[in-house]
Amino acid sequence: MKTIGAAIVGGTGFGAGELLRYFVSHPAVEVVSVVSSSSPGERISGSHPYLSSFYDRPFDAALPFERLEPYRERFIFLALPHGQSGLWLKEHRAKLGRTKLIDLSADYRLSVQAVHEQTYPEVPFDGEIRSQFCYGLSEAASEQIARSHWIANPGCLATACALAAKPLLSAFSSELSGTLCFDAKTGTSGAGRKAQDSMHHPTRHANMEAYKVLCHRHEPELRQALGLSAAQRTMFVPHLLPCTRGIFVTVYTELKSPQSASDLLDCYQRFYQGKRFIRIRETSPTLHDVVGTNFCDIAVAVRGTQVVVMCSLDNMGKGMAGQAIQNMNLMCGLDETSGLLIPSVGPL
Amino acid sequence: MKTIGAAIVGGTGFGAGELLRYFVSHPAVEVVSVVSSSSPGERISGSHPYLSSFYDRPFDAALPFERLEPYRERFIFLALPHGQSGLWLKEHRAKLGRTKLIDLSADYRLSVQAVHEQTYPEVPFDGEIRSQFCYGLSEAASEQIARSHWIANPGCLATACALAAKPLLSAFSSELSGTLCFDAKTGTSGAGRKAQDSMHHPTRHANMEAYKVLCHRHEPELRQALGLSAAQRTMFVPHLLPCTRGIFVTVYTELKSPQSASDLLDCYQRFYQGKRFIRIRETSPTLHDVVGTNFCDIAVAVRGTQVVVMCSLDNMGKGMAGQAIQNMNLMCGLDETSGLLIPSVGPL
Amino acid sequence: MKTIGAAIVGGTGFGAGELLRYFVSHPAVEVVSVVSSSSPGERISGSHPYLSSFYDRPFDAALPFERLEPYRERFIFLALPHGQSGLWLKEHRAKLGRTKLIDLSADYRLSVQAVHEQTYPEVPFDGEIRSQFCYGLSEAASEQIARSHWIANPGCLATACALAAKPLLSAFSSELSGTLCFDAKTGTSGAGRKAQDSMHHPTRHANMEAYKVLCHRHEPELRQALGLSAAQRTMFVPHLLPCTRGIFVTVYTELKSPQSASDLLDCYQRFYQGKRFIRIRETSPTLHDVVGTNFCDIAVAVRGTQVVVMCSLDNMGKGMAGQAIQNMNLMCGLDETSGLLIPSVGPL
Amino acid sequence: MKTIGAAIVGGTGFGAGELLRYFVSHPAVEVVSVVSSSSPGERISGSHPYLSSFYDRPFDAALPFERLEPYRERFIFLALPHGQSGLWLKEHRAKLGRTKLIDLSADYRLSVQAVHEQTYPEVPFDGEIRSQFCYGLSEAASEQIARSHWIANPGCLATACALAAKPLLSAFSSELSGTLCFDAKTGTSGAGRKAQDSMHHPTRHANMEAYKVLCHRHEPELRQALGLSAAQRTMFVPHLLPCTRGIFVTVYTELKSPQSASDLLDCYQRFYQGKRFIRIRETSPTLHDVVGTNFCDIAVAVRGTQVVVMCSLDNMGKGMAGQAIQNMNLMCGLDETSGLLIPSVGPL
Repeated sequence: MKTIGAAIVGGTGFGAGELLRYFVSHPAVEVVSVVSSSSPGERISGSHPYLSSFYDRPFDAALPFERLEPYRERFIFLALPHGQSGLWLKEHRAKLGRTKLIDLSADYRLSVQAVHEQTYPEVPFDGEIRSQFCYGLSEAASEQIARSHWIANPGCLATACALAAKPLLSAFSSELSGTLCFDAKTGTSGAGRKAQDSMHHPTRHANMEAYKVLCHRHEPELRQALGLSAAQRTMFVPHLLPCTRGIFVTVYTELKSPQSASDLLDCYQRFYQGKRFIRIRETSPTLHDVVGTNFCDIAVAVRGTQVVVMCSLDNMGKGMAGQAIQNMNLMCGLDETSGLLIPSVGPL
Repeated sequence: MKTIGAAIVGGTGFGAGELLRYFVSHPAVEVVSVVSSSSPGERISGSHPYLSSFYDRPFDAALPFERLEPYRERFIFLALPHGQSGLWLKEHRAKLGRTKLIDLSADYRLSVQAVHEQTYPEVPFDGEIRSQFCYGLSEAASEQIARSHWIANPGCLATACALAAKPLLSAFSSELSGTLCFDAKTGTSGAGRKAQDSMHHPTRHANMEAYKVLCHRHEPELRQALGLSAAQRTMFVPHLLPCTRGIFVTVYTELKSPQSASDLLDCYQRFYQGKRFIRIRETSPTLHDVVGTNFCDIAVAVRGTQVVVMCSLDNMGKGMAGQAIQNMNLMCGLDETSGLLIPSVGPL
Repeated sequence: MKTIGAAIVGGTGFGAGELLRYFVSHPAVEVVSVVSSSSPGERISGSHPYLSSFYDRPFDAALPFERLEPYRERFIFLALPHGQSGLWLKEHRAKLGRTKLIDLSADYRLSVQAVHEQTYPEVPFDGEIRSQFCYGLSEAASEQIARSHWIANPGCLATACALAAKPLLSAFSSELSGTLCFDAKTGTSGAGRKAQDSMHHPTRHANMEAYKVLCHRHEPELRQALGLSAAQRTMFVPHLLPCTRGIFVTVYTELKSPQSASDLLDCYQRFYQGKRFIRIRETSPTLHDVVGTNFCDIAVAVRGTQVVVMCSLDNMGKGMAGQAIQNMNLMCGLDETSGLLIPSVGPL
Repeated sequence: MKTIGAAIVGGTGFGAGELLRYFVSHPAVEVVSVVSSSSPGERISGSHPYLSSFYDRPFDAALPFERLEPYRERFIFLALPHGQSGLWLKEHRAKLGRTKLIDLSADYRLSVQAVHEQTYPEVPFDGEIRSQFCYGLSEAASEQIARSHWIANPGCLATACALAAKPLLSAFSSELSGTLCFDAKTGTSGAGRKAQDSMHHPTRHANMEAYKVLCHRHEPELRQALGLSAAQRTMFVPHLLPCTRGIFVTVYTELKSPQSASDLLDCYQRFYQGKRFIRIRETSPTLHDVVGTNFCDIAVAVRGTQVVVMCSLDNMGKGMAGQAIQNMNLMCGLDETSGLLIPSVGPL
């Protein structure tokens, strides 16, 4: 019998589908339930046809906690829309016991009440609950994650920006002389599964535009993830790419004194030494190399004092379900790569 | 130690990359060499960046046969352009011994000399060698494949057409009253890795066209795969889709007497009973459900005597490398699904 | 002052946007009103941002008929959803007078009551009104269109299939020995402007599937357009392409006796002699060559008795707004190409 | 007879095709010759199939200067690869007389010898010839262009960056406190018509990457176009989008004191007052709104002292052929919009 029992709440969305896809290859995980309050009784593979012949059983209407009991490790993944995770947790908290929880929503990501309330005014801030969550940026907090029971899984854009800039801030923090500009490009799957005008195929195909310019919710999150002081200025603009999966972030900044390309490269290679999912590249990252995977590819360029960092990852992989499973691995004492060392399909 | 030693010849092409990708997840295969006469000494992941951190060692200039020796099962995969496989085999035949061979090219697919010479006039037909090859359409000839040492791996379009039409021909052969029309739509990766005008991104993006209308080389192959007599007429037209991976074939034909939808469905379900990679669908197959996998999804529709069969697969998976590995599994006595039961990434 | 006053009802949809785009270049048309009951008072270019600086005035809540009066020719284009055109016409019929009407919907396309009622059961058939409509396949009925006041503008898929097969049926009708199989591939804009799950970008990007297999509403229409008898059998399967604009139809059929390629070519060239929007091609049509235009490109291939016809057009151009304007030109005694001789942008 | 005789040299490339497409709608231009040294005698529409029925006559092997003579205005458009324009001009200079010249290549764009030699070391700098060229950024130098005989047509990326930043520099030059970061995203047509590995469809589809990071040749050009002093620092990174046409540039900078959104908007509206091809948008520009046109759409966002400018245009339109024709219009005393006021096709 496998050692980890896993249940997913919010079964019809992209997050659930992607978790299930990764679980197919995970050696230790048994999926004991997929809950959908909107489609109870329907086949899981009806909502996720690509999982046909893998998950043909029905969605549960509510989580059967008792099915988790036989497992040494018990996990619930909340793949609910923002706001609903918090409600679910409040309702079911008493039943959790030693069952661990990974929340894919934004409900518990921000730790400062004022920042949370300004960013997600529609989601009440509960300081007591929030204090028990660990922000799960795997490469940045692996030990803390390993000790935690509840994880607030990072947002996809914040993950890319944070992973791109962390080594720079670590090595050259006092050297930074200017604003950190994050230009993010993302596929359309980030908007979720539900049809909406702005994600209508004729609107997005062969098109590009910026959105939520200087007012996207992931900017406070990436600032928190990077531990920036108020003095360190950032600009963040996301753009919609005419493809479905993948994020590409380009970071621009200036240092006080010139650096060599090899120094920058060394800085990144050292910082991510031993981190299997971070691949430091000599040329630009691409979406192809990371789509469908938990990898995050990073490259740096330098010209005197000017630094550019490029970073690509799959918003549904390292930016969501992949990182959630990586966190689960850490929380179980497994190798963090367990079930996740799968290359992308490449030409796409 | 793993039980299968595998070598790939023709290492820089899409075929090799895709084989290597599948081998990452295969429990029994050790890749002992990837040969590239054009890029010896360069890193494998230099040609296939998405395999970075999986295959960072160099290409070999020539196949080191001795490296295969320690393994209980020894396999060579020829991923060379049409015409070059035959040359390679003639040169190295004496060294093969009990090493098994799977050829991804078209050089040994056609068994009738006249048909071969008309179809591939530039590739000499060697009847003695050809007679030792088994045409490796896995679902159609699993026992013969299991006993074979040399496999001619089917073409991608022929695989899709043959898998789509086989059950129909098996159950209703005498009932067929008209031509079998195969309308095939394929992604651009089928043309291989080398840049060419007709596959230039600005030419193919958001575009579609037919090519080699009524004169494509896979029509003789699919006729052979289906065992058609000269009396059974076929028409075959491939079209280029504005995407990279995936084949979708729509088959049109007429029967002498009307059939019910459920009879047709039964026919397909029975024919492929126990075949894990064939999924009979109730609605249209899609590319998303099969891209990156060894699955072939099939659906049927009927209106009186009129029958439509739809079939989708990944030209690089079930249409090439996936089927090659499925054949390898069969030739080793492994479960044919070994290392291949991976769902697609879905929304793409 | 321009000679044609034109009003559009149903202003926020793709049909209206495309009509307006063509009217920018039309030498004789003045757009006097664009009606939207859902967005009255909002800027036209708010719904169609690509028309910004061309149509920045507001939608009208209802059609101001008096604005049409000063013009020698008066046209109303109904760009409403199926079913609503009929309702609009019944309500406003008395006000039409000599104002001509072109209806982009399917409400008045089918002339046989039983066929209409089976195909569009939700739209009542009004024989008296229907009898005053002319089915506006421009190349097939230019003289009748020129004498008509009310036009039922053909559907996009039916237009492509009919234009592809007409010359064949005209020249070889008694020679046809088998079913006419129409394999249609279409972009996503055919489904209209409104977001829906099946047209969600993550669902359609890099994907393909068939829909309404053997039961699409354009099959009765194309049969009517081709004047087929019940004895002439057809099969029609549409597929969704991963792009926005364009239709590509491949027609398969068999003749009783073999034909040469040049005979077939001659047949098509003669049939469309003088028809500026039909371009007979020596190689496969493409989407690129027709997207954004009123052109329909056709090529033929033959192998003995087997014939393949390929046809491409823009579902929003020749398949909708372009043909509507071509019909308007005919109805005004203008050159049918007036305002429509614009090449596509090519590489897209 | 039309008043402008125009000849194009370098007839098979994207530049020539796009010029020809615009000339179809230009009321004053007669195309007297399209020269291709590589495909003399072949039909123009053979190289540009979308121009079929518009330009079916053959390419000329060499420019027949005498055909230009009857026209009041005579223009030669050089659509040759970088380096070849200069060679052509040196060879044919004596024959030019009062014939005007618009060069689409980079050969005469840079005015400072040292900058040119560092940027295009393979193209010799000829100061005497260069001094007779006017850099043709239409909105920035319309009067100078109108007086010029030889135009160096700006590069596509430089055009987008310069148009995006000019108003800011004009109004807030002394207020700029930081680096101007230009994050550019461009379609694949910018690389030209010739197939190459990096533009192979399977490589680019659904992919994204940066290239020539901090070392792209358009950075010196955009600095020159903006008239920047050495003290004003810039960073420029172009990225390849998975689509064919269109550029989207996002500019990041900081001012010394905060500005309001309306002040910024006013600044841009005033600066481009009366410029028909610049549309100041209230929301993000898109590619759809500009593809196939000569428009450049711009929007601004501000947060305290932080400013973001977004700009979209078609690299083949305003970024190449469209601007060339706009310059021709200016040089002839025509309205600069002549033949160019065509909206995009919108949903694409």
